[in-house]
Amino acid sequence: MAKLAVPPLFSLRHFLVLSLALNVSLILRTAYYESGEGSKGFCLKKKMMVDVDSDVIDKSRLAISSSTSSLVNSTRSAGRERVINLDHGDPTMYERFWREMGDKTTITIPGWQSLSYLSDVSNICWFLEPEFAREVVRLHKVVGNAVTEGRHIVVGTGSSQLILAALYALSSPDAAEPISVVSAAPYYSSYPSMADYQKSGLYKWAGDAETFDKEGPYIELVTSPNNPDGYRRQAMVNRSQGLLIHDLAYYWPQYTPISSPSDHDLTLFTVSKSTGHAGTRIGWALVKDEEVVKKMTKFIELNTIGVSRDSQFRASKVLKAVSDSCEQENSQDEESFFKYSYKIMAQRWKQLRAVVDAGDMFSLPQFSPAFCIFFGHETEPQPGFIWLKCEGDIEDCESFLRGHKIITRSGKHFGASPKYVRISMLDTDGTFLQLIDRLSAIQERE
Amino acid sequence: MAKLAVPPLFSLRHFLVLSLALNVSLILRTAYYESGEGSKGFCLKKKMMVDVDSDVIDKSRLAISSSTSSLVNSTRSAGRERVINLDHGDPTMYERFWREMGDKTTITIPGWQSLSYLSDVSNICWFLEPEFAREVVRLHKVVGNAVTEGRHIVVGTGSSQLILAALYALSSPDAAEPISVVSAAPYYSSYPSMADYQKSGLYKWAGDAETFDKEGPYIELVTSPNNPDGYRRQAMVNRSQGLLIHDLAYYWPQYTPISSPSDHDLTLFTVSKSTGHAGTRIGWALVKDEEVVKKMTKFIELNTIGVSRDSQFRASKVLKAVSDSCEQENSQDEESFFKYSYKIMAQRWKQLRAVVDAGDMFSLPQFSPAFCIFFGHETEPQPGFIWLKCEGDIEDCESFLRGHKIITRSGKHFGASPKYVRISMLDTDGTFLQLIDRLSAIQERE
Repeated sequence: MAKLAVPPLFSLRHFLVLSLALNVSLILRTAYYESGEGSKGFCLKKKMMVDVDSDVIDKSRLAISSSTSSLVNSTRSAGRERVINLDHGDPTMYERFWREMGDKTTITIPGWQSLSYLSDVSNICWFLEPEFAREVVRLHKVVGNAVTEGRHIVVGTGSSQLILAALYALSSPDAAEPISVVSAAPYYSSYPSMADYQKSGLYKWAGDAETFDKEGPYIELVTSPNNPDGYRRQAMVNRSQGLLIHDLAYYWPQYTPISSPSDHDLTLFTVSKSTGHAGTRIGWALVKDEEVVKKMTKFIELNTIGVSRDSQFRASKVLKAVSDSCEQENSQDEESFFKYSYKIMAQRWKQLRAVVDAGDMFSLPQFSPAFCIFFGHETEPQPGFIWLKCEGDIEDCESFLRGHKIITRSGKHFGASPKYVRISMLDTDGTFLQLIDRLSAIQERE
Repeated sequence: MAKLAVPPLFSLRHFLVLSLALNVSLILRTAYYESGEGSKGFCLKKKMMVDVDSDVIDKSRLAISSSTSSLVNSTRSAGRERVINLDHGDPTMYERFWREMGDKTTITIPGWQSLSYLSDVSNICWFLEPEFAREVVRLHKVVGNAVTEGRHIVVGTGSSQLILAALYALSSPDAAEPISVVSAAPYYSSYPSMADYQKSGLYKWAGDAETFDKEGPYIELVTSPNNPDGYRRQAMVNRSQGLLIHDLAYYWPQYTPISSPSDHDLTLFTVSKSTGHAGTRIGWALVKDEEVVKKMTKFIELNTIGVSRDSQFRASKVLKAVSDSCEQENSQDEESFFKYSYKIMAQRWKQLRAVVDAGDMFSLPQFSPAFCIFFGHETEPQPGFIWLKCEGDIEDCESFLRGHKIITRSGKHFGASPKYVRISMLDTDGTFLQLIDRLSAIQERE
């Protein structure tokens, strides 16, 4: 693939002046959003949002390969009256890379292929496609972000299913009471509901790991880099009876320096965040203990009788393309997937920090650079989410931003203060630029 | 597709004499099987069975398009020393049809397609692909097996996930105790584990619906035609506080006469059994009550954040091809998917009944023919499973058949007597013929 031009950091002043002027002349369109399941759910928006989303996507495509003026135009067309939804981390940002890759990751599946439930009956995880397993091992080797030797691979319908499978596998059906499940705040907003929605007698959400003081066994979810705030993490509760699940969905070079291969008992990854193929619903676990592998496999057998073979086939091809792009980078005029996505993320974080630093209404986490063994030089953490704090009098940052038609997820869902919100950094260029435009306008106005 | 020749019913005597003679001259191969999770699980067999399965598949392909002598040869090559596993209903029988269809159901997905989690944000079930939903409605109209008007469609990772989603949706988080889940024996062997593996405080397996006498609300799973025995069913518990889940995985013309469109509150179907695409892991629910739709959607959101979009795309194409084959049957020299599969099933049941009736060791369920609105004439039920009874002194039919290297699932897992076993009828031609050969040999010998 030829190198793609990342849009240069345009002049903020130029952008804002143009954008504000154009905004005034825009015909106001009726825009509203309906909250279905509350701000945590996916069902936020009905008819209207389809229109909004597809419009934004079209506009962003126009903007993608062109200059500042077309970026401004795209923002203008979408308009500030429109709701932009950055509540969930939908990784549509990566679409451009995969379009540019052309046919390299196109899959073709004939109608008679993979009819059987079974992928590999010689494996404990009988629904794991051998080709997918090979590409997982290869990619971890290429990137250097996980030890795969001495590990079994368990494939899941996204890493969500694997979190549940791991809770099931690490708990005991004979225990007198459910095992406590903890994670340090701010923790991933779905952990509490995932642990409790079934009212399971096996495990139970027990809140913030930092204040957890109950005796006996527990399961700690260690998310690193952390969702929502992007910081690197280690287990917080330091006791002998702890069982750890390492959720490393964002431990990839575009988000954080890869300091060393992760080397834990049970580690989770997903294509949603590594390559952007969220709709494919494929995650994987690297698991040391064979008994845990058996129980996780049993969980997935009872839950969904395995994992889509079509999706595993597609994920194999995508992971292969990523590894190939890394290995060929030096030999050909190509840019690896990670270099490409690192550059976009770097650009976005630069723009974001510039806007936030221009006023005093908001603040962002601060990170230290570190040596990345994948890139071979120091890199800066640039998380997939913004963990934004509203400074001053604004107590409910989510409501405040909703007033400006920016949908975010309140800090309270992450076990944190409502002065914080989580905002996706992985949406299309068009949506991201609208976010920047609006944050800037808010600081100008207030 | 040109009409395929179904192998004629060969002379059983000829087949048996040849087969027995050849069997004697076979070099005994080392064959064993290991039980991983017990006879109920998918992890039955390790290395050996991979070999067995692939061998059987190769042999069956040879046998498929040819005459009696090659069928005999195929059985001979596979040998009676080999373990044949008919414990689970893996629908590999349909492979031949899909091969003959050529490119009609081949899917091609470019690498940049369906990156997003979201399929259709205008739908409560936001992860449902609109194209898949349209093909579901169309197929039910073409076949006449379900009313779709006034129903929402919820897609699931196979119908297993939808059963769990339905249990979650129909139970109440505020109830004093878990709601009872019942089904009339013999019931699908996975129902008890599916209801209880999470030790949920929402619902709890309460056994055979026929003997259920507890007061208060309950959920009844009505499987029709029933897995394992193939009989048509209605709800057994007849009380006002019952919530019903109709599992109609086998309510398709190749298995049972379609008497009228099913018309229930919550009905489940799956591509695994209708078209044979088990590896694709796609099922769907037709649901009347919007609140139930919301809760089922929430369950799938927390469980797997949606359902593979690639698999939905593939399933759409497959369902479309099935509907097309039905609509084009009269106008062109083509055979519909259901006519084709009905003929194979009829042939298999004829062969099976001939073998079983030739001795007095085994017995089979008896069915009455009925008018099928799809075919426009009377048809006979011909279930996807054999519910075989060992007559006489054999108390443990599963162990007995295991001694003859036929792996089946014991009646005890279905809440029935161990004198019964369930045997898949949906395997390859080669494996099915080996089954017939062995049942015949057993009756000759004993």
